[in-house]
This record gives sequence, structure tokens and C-alpha cells, in this order.
Amino acid sequence: MSHYHPLTEQEAIDYARRLPDVFPSNAELSSREIGDGNLNLVFHITDSVSGRSLILKQALPYAKVVGESWPLSLDRSRIESEALVVQEALCPGLVPHVYTYDTELALTVMEDLSDHVIMRRGLVEGNRYPLFAEHIGHFLAHTLFYTSDWGMNQQEKKERLGRFINPDLCKITEDLIFDDPYRDAETNNIHEPIRPDVEKLWADQELLLEVAFLREKFLTHAQALLHGDLHTGSIFVTPESTKVIDPEFAYYGPMGFDIGAVLANLLLNYCGQAGWKSDQADLESFRNYLLETVEAVWTRFEQEFRALWEEKTVDRMARTPGFLDSFLARLLQDTFGFTGAKMVRRIHGLAQVADINRIEDAGVRAVAERTALHIGTALIKHNRQAADIKEMTDLARRAVQLHS
Amino acid sequence: MSHYHPLTEQEAIDYARRLPDVFPSNAELSSREIGDGNLNLVFHITDSVSGRSLILKQALPYAKVVGESWPLSLDRSRIESEALVVQEALCPGLVPHVYTYDTELALTVMEDLSDHVIMRRGLVEGNRYPLFAEHIGHFLAHTLFYTSDWGMNQQEKKERLGRFINPDLCKITEDLIFDDPYRDAETNNIHEPIRPDVEKLWADQELLLEVAFLREKFLTHAQALLHGDLHTGSIFVTPESTKVIDPEFAYYGPMGFDIGAVLANLLLNYCGQAGWKSDQADLESFRNYLLETVEAVWTRFEQEFRALWEEKTVDRMARTPGFLDSFLARLLQDTFGFTGAKMVRRIHGLAQVADINRIEDAGVRAVAERTALHIGTALIKHNRQAADIKEMTDLARRAVQLHS
Repeated sequence: MSHYHPLTEQEAIDYARRLPDVFPSNAELSSREIGDGNLNLVFHITDSVSGRSLILKQALPYAKVVGESWPLSLDRSRIESEALVVQEALCPGLVPHVYTYDTELALTVMEDLSDHVIMRRGLVEGNRYPLFAEHIGHFLAHTLFYTSDWGMNQQEKKERLGRFINPDLCKITEDLIFDDPYRDAETNNIHEPIRPDVEKLWADQELLLEVAFLREKFLTHAQALLHGDLHTGSIFVTPESTKVIDPEFAYYGPMGFDIGAVLANLLLNYCGQAGWKSDQADLESFRNYLLETVEAVWTRFEQEFRALWEEKTVDRMARTPGFLDSFLARLLQDTFGFTGAKMVRRIHGLAQVADINRIEDAGVRAVAERTALHIGTALIKHNRQAADIKEMTDLARRAVQLHS
Repeated sequence: MSHYHPLTEQEAIDYARRLPDVFPSNAELSSREIGDGNLNLVFHITDSVSGRSLILKQALPYAKVVGESWPLSLDRSRIESEALVVQEALCPGLVPHVYTYDTELALTVMEDLSDHVIMRRGLVEGNRYPLFAEHIGHFLAHTLFYTSDWGMNQQEKKERLGRFINPDLCKITEDLIFDDPYRDAETNNIHEPIRPDVEKLWADQELLLEVAFLREKFLTHAQALLHGDLHTGSIFVTPESTKVIDPEFAYYGPMGFDIGAVLANLLLNYCGQAGWKSDQADLESFRNYLLETVEAVWTRFEQEFRALWEEKTVDRMARTPGFLDSFLARLLQDTFGFTGAKMVRRIHGLAQVADINRIEDAGVRAVAERTALHIGTALIKHNRQAADIKEMTDLARRAVQLHS
């Protein structure tokens, strides 16, 4: 079975049975393919005798979303498993444990998290996760600090960067986030009622210039090992637990890209909630919870990152008074910009979000889309002036008022 | 002979004799080890019969300058030969041709350039190179543009970046340029008369903060494949020809680092000329020539880089009006900063320059050193406000007046 081919469910069961020390010899294994992504097979293997379970995630050599015509390197599977190992070492408990990785099959065997729910779904259903901001702020601070030139040996960082060269998946981001949404691209998927808004955006030279600067940072600023796709569909949650999954887009890039991904997806849910909550007081309360979470994620990240830097930085020059303040000020600005870019691409780009595009009422959906485009473009244009995370939540609040 | 060991001169001759199609069968070969660097053996092989010659350059597994205790990866030799191949493809005639590379021996066989002189020596001797600015401006524009995300396929750029991960040699730069000169480090080599000036520099918080920002750029801004050590000791010249050699420090870094290396070494020679020219009119004229060359290098680079970008960029978003102007404005600022950093490290750091430290009169030498420290620190502090290359030459002119 070692030559690469996409596994059948029976092959996945056979593979799982042969893993040492996982299932008892009398196990009765069953498999369910639960991949809802576009790039992978995900087999959920369970033993009805012991109750044990695990996940086999196998990379496909193409992107399903556009058929087999978009080939993708299987090396992203190695990158994902190695990123998970790095992240688990830095943040035990916040990512699924990797049992083993099979290079030939591009297959990762990992902890089953099916007692968690995908955060995007949880938020659409109106659930709150009171520990999420603390968990993800910790995750961001530790993974970004300890993989950067400030938190690890600077020569080892260069070698690690070499192991996370990820051209195929970076290309997806470069196209779908930093190019296609800003032109009349075939990949776009425009909800007709907002076409005039989208066309206005394509002509906004001030916006396009700021997007070009953000694209430049994505292409050239090798600050830290990013997750690379840290939206709420890549996060499993319960009220007590947070698990970050799917780091197949991992590469060395600008820290603000990961932070912005989290904040953007909270704000997308914020924009979409009018389609999910009919009670006005409930809607307002949940939206306040989301904006408080946006602020808390940054604040927690910033506190922990600052503390790590002050105690642990390996870079003598970076201890010069003023450097860390400048670094964090610039990081907040990057975060504003990337938050905006991550919002815009989800409104009329190829890959959209259920928080908004599953709203059945086309009018309500269009309002959510306009609100998200408003917030996204305003964050992008404001990014290099941003000085406080509250500017982001104030802007979001005003946008909802304006569009309701 | 294939197992790595430093070659003897006889082994170098035997190796050269076995190269196909280089020397005739009746060749009478002799070898001279001419390495004046710190990291390599350089054998000059000549055939007294045909008059043909070539260079065998072999990496040593340690830095000679501090004895065998500073180990260095032999992989830098592969990096050097691959960088030369990339550079020759982009700028034919401006680098030595590589005939072959021997991985086992860390040995590059390349074109002999002994009809040229090392530019540092030529400038110390008061020679002018009227085509230099045009040549090096062209070299910088083409190598930096065509290895960047703006001038080459962005996925191939990532793979190429992976081939130029260069931890050992980057570490030398990080220590000797962006750390040690700014503290009382053992590696420093301080000419006693200027010790008070150096100690003042160590306490200058504004300066230290800017150096920390430049260090950050060196560590994280993967803009283009740099030469990485482009001082006038890495350039062979005649009045008609320019050849850039020794790219063993090549890695993906900020473009301004290479441009700054060239300008810094022109300015170091400018500071040192009072030690070499006794006639005041001659001195003034040569200094004017050097400052004109500083301006011409940037101007030529900027013209060619702009033209390449406008005609050839592969990045649609980077064609947004305003982007190129912003990019070049920031690049000029980086160039000011790196020029300053490259000057300061040559005054009291480990590796100094003959333009200044071979001046026999200690008083004249100290004036040259103070002038260079003045210009270097002023460029570093001014870098983020710089808007015109003339600010650099004006500053240099005022510094000489102040210290003479």
C-alpha cells in the first residue's frame, strides 16, 4: 500500500489496524470519510469495542474545489504534520497530537477531536466560547514568538524556514486573497445584489495600493512560522477547549497574517449574525460578545508576546528600548490590514463562509456582505494608521449601524 | 582526491590538468595560492605554453581570521558557485564564468580575472573607473529585480530561496555588522585615538534603535538574492570592465543591503583619501569623483530597476499606481541605513578596510575614522527620513569639512 494513491475506506481501516499500540487486537474498526475541505481525505476510524478512535488525513494531489485540474504538491502533507509537531511542542493541548506521518502516502495519523465542533459552526449556532480568546492568544503568542528570530536560534530559524517552503499553498493565498478579489477574475463568486459594491472596490486605487503592500508583506516578510489558514473552520472548540487544526498552509510569513485570520473570521460572523438571530437583544448581545472577543484575542496575544519577548528574546539588539514597542505597533497595523484582506476575500472570492453565504434571505445576506466589505476595506485602508485594537471594533460597530 | 581536504598546490595543478577542454595536452602548469581572504584557498593556475589560466577556489571548513576555531559550512561553496551562475545568466560579463563545481571538494573552477585589479586597491591608488557606476548599477538592478517576487515566478522564487539558506555566513554578518560594533565586544579592534568616539556610539540609544531595525530587516526581509558582501574588495575592475566576485554570503535578504555595501565602501575610500593624496586639489577632485560615483550608482540602479519593473514585472498588484514609487522610496531609505551600518563596522569592528587602517599617520587615520563614523552614524539615524541620494553626498561633504 506504500505507493501513493488515495485510500479507500477499507484501506484506511486496514492501515489503522496495523498501527502499533493504538487499537486492541479484537478491535472492530469502521471508517467514515468526513473531509469537508477541498484538498484532503479525512478518515474517522473508530473501534466499537474499545471506543477508541483516530483520524487519518491524506492529502490529495489536486484541489477538489476545481476538479483535478489544479494540481497540488503532496509535500504540503509533510509540512502540515511537521507544523503540528512544532506547534504541539510550543502549545501542548492546543493542537491535535500526531501519532505518525507516512511520507509515501502523504498521510498523517492524528488525535480524533470529534468531541469538539468546528468553531465556525459553533458561532453560527450562537454558542459562546469563554476561553477561546485566552487559548488562541496564547497559541498565537507562543507559535509566532518561538519560531521567529526573536524567540529561537537565528541559524536554526533559517534551516526551519527551508523546511517550510510551501509554493503551491502560498500560491492559493496569493491568488485568492491578494489578487483575484481585486479584479474581475473567473474565480470570483459574486452574489448579484452586491455586484455594484464589488465593482466600486475594483476601482478604488487607494484600496488597491494598500492590498499591494499587504501582498508584498505576504511574499517577502519571513517573520515566523505561520499556521497560514487560521480561520474559524481551522479551529475545533468546546467551551473548555480549543484545538487548532489543518496547518497545511504553514510557511514563514508576516505574523499579522495569522492574527488577522482569527479576527477576520470573528468579524465575518459578526456581520452574518443578523441572518441567524431574530431576537434583537440576543443579536446585540452576541455581537458584543464577538467584538469583546476580537479585542481580547489581540490583548491576550499582545500581553503574552510582550512577556515572552522581555523574558526570552535571543536577540540582544532587539532589547534596545523602543524596539519591542515599535515591533508591536507595526504588528497591530499589519493585523488590521490582513484582517481586512481576509474579510474581503470571503465575500466575493472563490472560498466563502457559511456565516454569511448560507443566509437564506438574499436581502439579509446582501446587508451582511456589504457590512463585511465595508469593514474589510476600511481596515485595509486604515491599516498603516492603526494604533489601538479598539479602532477595529469601533469601526465594526459603526459599519453595522450604517448598513442596518 | 574526491574526499574533502584542502588541496596542496600540486594537487590543484593535477586537478586542473584533468579538466576537459581547458589546457592543451602539452601544458606546463604552475600554481600560486593567491587567497587574501579569510575563508578560502584560491589557486591561480597558469599554462606557460598556451598562456591560458584559470582559478580554483576551494572553501576551507573554518575561518582563517580567527584560526580553526570558527567552523564554517562548506555548503557556502555550493552557494557561491550557484549564485555566480544565476548572476552570469542575468548579467553576462559582469561576473567570472564558472566552468565547473566540485561538491566533494567544495571547489569552484572559474575564469581567471588577473588582468583586473581589486577595486579597493585601485581606489586607494587613486585610479578612476568611469564605467563602474554604469556597470554596478546594471548589476544591482538586474540581479535584485530578476531574483525578486517582482521579476521572477513567485513559486520558483520560494524554491530558489530554499537553495540559498546560508546560516553560517549570515551569522557572520549578523554578529560583525549588526551587533558587535554596538557593544564592547571582543571581536572589535579599536584604534585607541578614537575610543571615546566609539564609546559615545555605544551609548547612543537613537542609533542603537535604528541598528536594531536594520538588523530586523536583514533577518526577515527576503526580497531578493543578494550578493551579500558587495564591498570594493569583492569587485575586480579595469577602466573598461567590472567583475563582481565572491558571492559566498549570498542569501535572500533586503535589496538595500547590497546597494549599501557598494556605497559604503566608496564613502570609506572618500574618508581615507586624505591619507593617500597629499595634493589638496587632487584630493578634492578625487573626492568629488567618489561622491559623483555614489550618486551615479544609485541613479543608474534606480533608472534600470524602474524600467525593468515597468516592462517586466510578473506581479499584477505591484503595477498599482504608487506602488513602485513607494517601493523605491523605501529602498532608498534602506540603502541609507545599510550604507551607514557597513561603514561603522569597518572602523572599529573585526574586519577593517585598507582605505583607512593602512594609513600610516595615526592622526590622519583617526580623522578618517572619525569622519567615517560621523557619516555612518548620521546615515543610520537619518535612514527613515531619506528622500534623495544627494542627502547622502551632502552629508559626506559636511562631515569632511567638520573633521578637517
